[in-house]
Order: sequence, then C-alpha cells, then structure tokens
Amino acid sequence: MPIISQRGLEMPASPIRKLVPLANKAKANGIKVYHLNIGQPDLKTPQVAIDAARNLDLDILEYSPSEGIKSFREKLVKYYDKFHINVTADDIIITTGGSEAVLFSFMACLDPGDEIIVPEPAYANYMAFAVSCGAVIKTITSTIDTGFALPPVEEFEKLITPKTKAILICNPNNPTGYLYTQKEMNQIRDIVKKYDLFLFSDEVYREFCYTGAPYISAFHLEGIENNVVLVDSVSKRYSECGIRIGALITKNKEVRANVMKWCQARLSPPLMGQIMAEASLDAPESYMLECYNEYVERRKFLIDGLNKIPGCYSPIPMGAFYTVAKLPVDDSDKFCQWCLEEFSYEGQTVFMAPASGFYTTPGVGRDEVRIAYVLEKEELAKALKVLEKALESYPGRKL
Amino acid sequence: MPIISQRGLEMPASPIRKLVPLANKAKANGIKVYHLNIGQPDLKTPQVAIDAARNLDLDILEYSPSEGIKSFREKLVKYYDKFHINVTADDIIITTGGSEAVLFSFMACLDPGDEIIVPEPAYANYMAFAVSCGAVIKTITSTIDTGFALPPVEEFEKLITPKTKAILICNPNNPTGYLYTQKEMNQIRDIVKKYDLFLFSDEVYREFCYTGAPYISAFHLEGIENNVVLVDSVSKRYSECGIRIGALITKNKEVRANVMKWCQARLSPPLMGQIMAEASLDAPESYMLECYNEYVERRKFLIDGLNKIPGCYSPIPMGAFYTVAKLPVDDSDKFCQWCLEEFSYEGQTVFMAPASGFYTTPGVGRDEVRIAYVLEKEELAKALKVLEKALESYPGRKL
Repeated sequence: MPIISQRGLEMPASPIRKLVPLANKAKANGIKVYHLNIGQPDLKTPQVAIDAARNLDLDILEYSPSEGIKSFREKLVKYYDKFHINVTADDIIITTGGSEAVLFSFMACLDPGDEIIVPEPAYANYMAFAVSCGAVIKTITSTIDTGFALPPVEEFEKLITPKTKAILICNPNNPTGYLYTQKEMNQIRDIVKKYDLFLFSDEVYREFCYTGAPYISAFHLEGIENNVVLVDSVSKRYSECGIRIGALITKNKEVRANVMKWCQARLSPPLMGQIMAEASLDAPESYMLECYNEYVERRKFLIDGLNKIPGCYSPIPMGAFYTVAKLPVDDSDKFCQWCLEEFSYEGQTVFMAPASGFYTTPGVGRDEVRIAYVLEKEELAKALKVLEKALESYPGRKL
Repeated sequence: MPIISQRGLEMPASPIRKLVPLANKAKANGIKVYHLNIGQPDLKTPQVAIDAARNLDLDILEYSPSEGIKSFREKLVKYYDKFHINVTADDIIITTGGSEAVLFSFMACLDPGDEIIVPEPAYANYMAFAVSCGAVIKTITSTIDTGFALPPVEEFEKLITPKTKAILICNPNNPTGYLYTQKEMNQIRDIVKKYDLFLFSDEVYREFCYTGAPYISAFHLEGIENNVVLVDSVSKRYSECGIRIGALITKNKEVRANVMKWCQARLSPPLMGQIMAEASLDAPESYMLECYNEYVERRKFLIDGLNKIPGCYSPIPMGAFYTVAKLPVDDSDKFCQWCLEEFSYEGQTVFMAPASGFYTTPGVGRDEVRIAYVLEKEELAKALKVLEKALESYPGRKL
C-alpha cells in the first residue's frame, strides 16, 4: 500500500472534530446536547435568497466566470461602499467560501517556507491552508487578561525573520470576538509597511460589531493598498454557510493575476451560491437589524451568565458571535470531552470547543473554551445552567 | 510592494485563457465565434435538478457535512453499482467539483517533490493542482499516429524514480477521447502493483463511450483496491458544470482520513449543488439516452467533416466529447490566435484549443488542436466550413 502524504499526517487534528462522535453518541443515548461549539447561525437565511433558488430560470447550469459573476461583483462594490471600502468589481474575485479565499491568498502570495504571523487564539483552519502550500504560521499570543487585545508591536518584531511574508488578522475576531482598535490597526499598518508584508485580513464578521467602536477594515489603512488581501464570506452575515460563497479582494494586480491561475484551475465558484448571494444583497435592512439585535441580546445574556458562574470569566466580546472564556478546570480538552462522555444534567449536556485548537503555542489557553452564541436565549439559559452543574461535579475542577 | 509567490509565476498560462480576450474582441466586432474550445455542454440540465432548486424547502442554508450529504452518497452507491463499481457510502467523499477531488487526492497522497506519471496530452489543470502541493508531473507522450493509445509499459518504467508516487489517467480521455482497453488497464494495474503507486483515475466521462468497447474503471482492476483514488464529477453527465459537485472515491482508509482533513478545513461542499446533483440521479433513462445519442451523432459528423478537410486528420475518439486533430499548420497556437484576431468567413470564426496546453514536452503536438463537440450539428457544420476556409487562407499553412 503506497504511503500517504506526510503533510497530511502533520496537520493537527481539530479537537472539535474529535468530540463530534462523542456528541453523536450522547444524542443517540437520548441526551439533549447544546451546540455551543460551532459557528453555524440558527437565524434564517434572507427570504430573497431562498426565492432566488425557487425562481431559478435557467435551462443549463453552466460554468460561471472563474472570477465570479459580473453583476454580483458589481453589486458587492456598492455593499462595500457602505463600509467605506472603496473597491471596483475588478478588485473582487468570488471564491468558494471564505475558505478558498484564504487558500488562494496563501497560494498566490507565499512560497514554501514563507512565514505568516498570526495573533492567537486563531481560527484553526488557517493552519490547514498554510500546510497546503508549505507556509509556516508563527503565532503571537494574545491573552484573556487583556481581553485578547493585540500584543505590542515589539512582540511582532521579535517574530520577524527574512522569511516573514505576511500578517494575518481576523477582525472582528473568531474565536475571541475582539475588535481591533484604530490604534492597533495603525500598529499593524506600520509593521506591514516597514517590512513590506502582505496583510491578509479576514473580515467576515464585519456586520457584527456591538460596542459602538468603529470597525476598521484593512482597506481603511493608508499607504498599504497594495499589501492588503481581504477575505470575505456571505456565510455569517446572511446565515447561508452552506452555499459556499466568499470573496478575495485586493488592489494588488499581481496578486490578482496569480490568484486567477488557481481560480481558472478550479474553473468556477458555485453558480447557485452566487445567484443566492447576489439576491441576499437585496435583503431588507430590517433583516440585518433583526439579526444584529438578536446577537446583541444573546451576547449580553451569555456573557452575564458566564461571569456569574463561580470561577468562570469571559471578557466582553466586541464583535462576531463567539467568546473565549476561562473555566475553573484543569484542562478544557478533558472537560469538554467529559461533558459529552460522562456528564448530563436532567438529560442535557453542552458541547463547547476546547481553546487548544485555536492556539499553536503548547499549553497556552488550557483552561479556555470557545462558546458560540448561535442559539436562542432560552436555549442559552439552559446551556448555562448545564455548564454550571457540569463545573460543580467535574473531577478536574480547579478554583 | 511584497513579492508574490514564485510558484504562481511558474504555473503555465493556459493557451485557451490567453485567447479568451481575443474571442471577446471578435464578438464585440460583430463576428460570430464558434466555441469549439470548451467542455461546457449545450445540452439541458435534467429537469429534476432544476425542480430540486425550485422546490427548495429550507429556512437556513446550513453547512452540510464535510464529506457530503449522506443520502446523496448512498444514492451514488447505487449509481456506481450500475457500472460494476462496488463502493460503499463511506468510500465516497463529495467534493467541490472534480477539480477539488484532484487537488485533495494530490494533497492527501503526495509530498513536495513527489512525482506523478501522466500520459499526455492531458487535462491542463492537473498541472496547477500538482504545483499547488509541490508535486511534479512527468509526462509520457501518446501520439496521434496510434490514436493516442497508451504508450508501452517500458516507457512508463523509464520514468519511474524513487520519487514516483502515482500514475494519473483520465478515461475516457480529455482531451483525446481515447478509451483505455482492458489490456492497457491491466498494464497500468501491473505497474501500479509492481511499484506500489497510487492510481488517480479521472472517470468523469464514463457515460460517453461510443464504440461498444467496454469502459474499464480503475475499480475494476483486481489487486490494487487500496491504490486507486477515483475522481468523479456530475458536471458533464448532467450538463451541470456550474453547480460544482464532484467526488473522490477510494477504499484506502488512510487516504480518506487524510482527505477529510482538507474537507474539514474547507468546511463543506456546496449545499445547493448537492441537492441538485442528488436529484439528477433520478433523471429518466431517456435523458441520458438522448444526450448519448446526440453526442454519437455529433462525433460522427465532426470527425467525418474534419477528415474531409485537406491536410486535417482526426482519429475517431471512442469517448468523452473531444477530439485532438492534426491541422496543416506551422503552429496551432499561432493558427488559433490568427483565427480570432485576423480571420473571418462570412462574419464567422472558430475558437479552438491549441494542443500545446495539453502537453508538457516542448514542441510536441504543435500542429494539433482540441475540438469539443458541444455544439449542435448545424453549428458544427458551419464551424467546419469556417475552419476549412481559415486553413485555406492561413499564411502559416503547411501541407
């Protein structure tokens, strides 16, 4: 039997994925499992998107252009304009989810051995895309004590080597919900400029900023227009993760030309998804507002609830729909597993994401979990109760 | 400005892509362009697929499982059974088009520097996926004089090095339309077995075999069950290239586990495409038969027509919907460009794919083009006339 790729073997297995079979087993045993582990919103997709599929008026489902349907890209220009992101349709390349935008950014900009600096905790799948193209992620740790603020510039500079090619940020942040301040974004801009790096900026949660603090896009930073590659997705903002539509946006023509080689190799992004995403742009303002208000309420409810549980601490996330919380446990991997495997309270348990999957620095964040507030308040209330009970009886409890 | 990836720069630019702007310019000048260059069928998508979208009954377009929707995979098991391909739903991983199946096969099986032997002419995008993961494609040339039959086993063995990790075939073949015989498939099996290689088998055209000769799947070969990775797609068989649904099928559990890491990183294949592809499996037999009969007629019409043009020669393709033909020209890159840029006959011209894009051996196939028969006969007749006239007046004509 031939030997499989070592690259694959070296890829870290996601701690969430390892727990999925346990959650399924618990459910099979009749236990109600509250899914706090995933970023799959429970809010409805806009009706205009559903209607776009229902009114499909095509005989042949042909390849769409490799860069995406023109009318969709043109409509996105107006969407971005609302956020003072001034781009043209030519700057926008439609991708198969934000995932493909990350992969193609890396493929187009990085050579094997090149290094990307990423503040951790970070979205775990960045790592897989880096492994795909032989690039190396170097993390800089942000901590719960500072609410996951950006580490000081000196920390970045310590990591810079001749191989450093890019900085990657996610803003608002998954998993922490942190929103970078103008000062922090300026700091990033200065490093990017000083060392002539690419800035990959994943901004898929821009709709979800809750504190009144401004959302600063990488495109708002002056003087690094040719360094920025923005990663976007319609998944979260329209609750349509399944249609797999994202975008890679850059003013750097060389990068775009390079990205297009991969776009052409995979022929085209999904046609139906593009039709539905384009329609979603016509969702009424009331749709976005309702979603927004719902998340605002859930956030308050969840964070208040968490901070009332003895030994728990969560900073107040400023955006997205996650928080990273500290629990009074020896090891959150063990605790999350224990919740699914050995614990239930009145026939219920909770599924949380151990934070270990979001850090590459060994041992860091060992008592942290990521909690997504993608359940309605009534469910969140029950989940919080279950979590409290679980912490009371967990053998590895540490206060 | 930071330096983009060298990997991207080294990727060969597709000669078809280079011609697209010229075709667009010709059209803008009022010239009717016959598209013989692409594998985008003009036949209708099955009504059941369109209806599946029109009857969409979902509120939230959620992520589907990373390996694809279970009911779809189970239904595919029955589909493959009709071709005596005996697989279980667990053996099938749904991908974003056949393209992603190729990419993930490479990512899961090959390390940087590993070599894949591919008979050429070959589908050009294999190269991009190899470049993506740092693998190296070594081509073995098949020639028009033998109708693009598989080169003798000795030619394969000449290419084998300690780095050789896989053989990749496309059967029925794009671009040649060649269908591998039992004898040839046994030859491939023996090499795969002897050197313990992976066999990547792209079989997306299996519905389109025209000569009565049997279609031999890589899964029909005994003794290499754990070496085979089959690449499939619904694009061509249901004329639904746009929905981006393919499959990677293997009985090798290690490969599947490795592939799943990439599947999980990109979260899920397109939901709408899966719904429509699953529905397509219920297309009536009459649908497939009509498509089949249509291609049979077009094939005869095209090949007869080509072989009547002085100096042209096309072998009779046994499958798919392409042929590679020899033209009486100095250089088919130049000729194809000239057709779009400088020639028209009664306000019409032809867009063909220069065969140079399908060969990696320099200079080989210089007088060849790939012609797709994805136009109806009346259009093909006109295109053939235009080609004949073009060859008469082309300055680089060689007889």
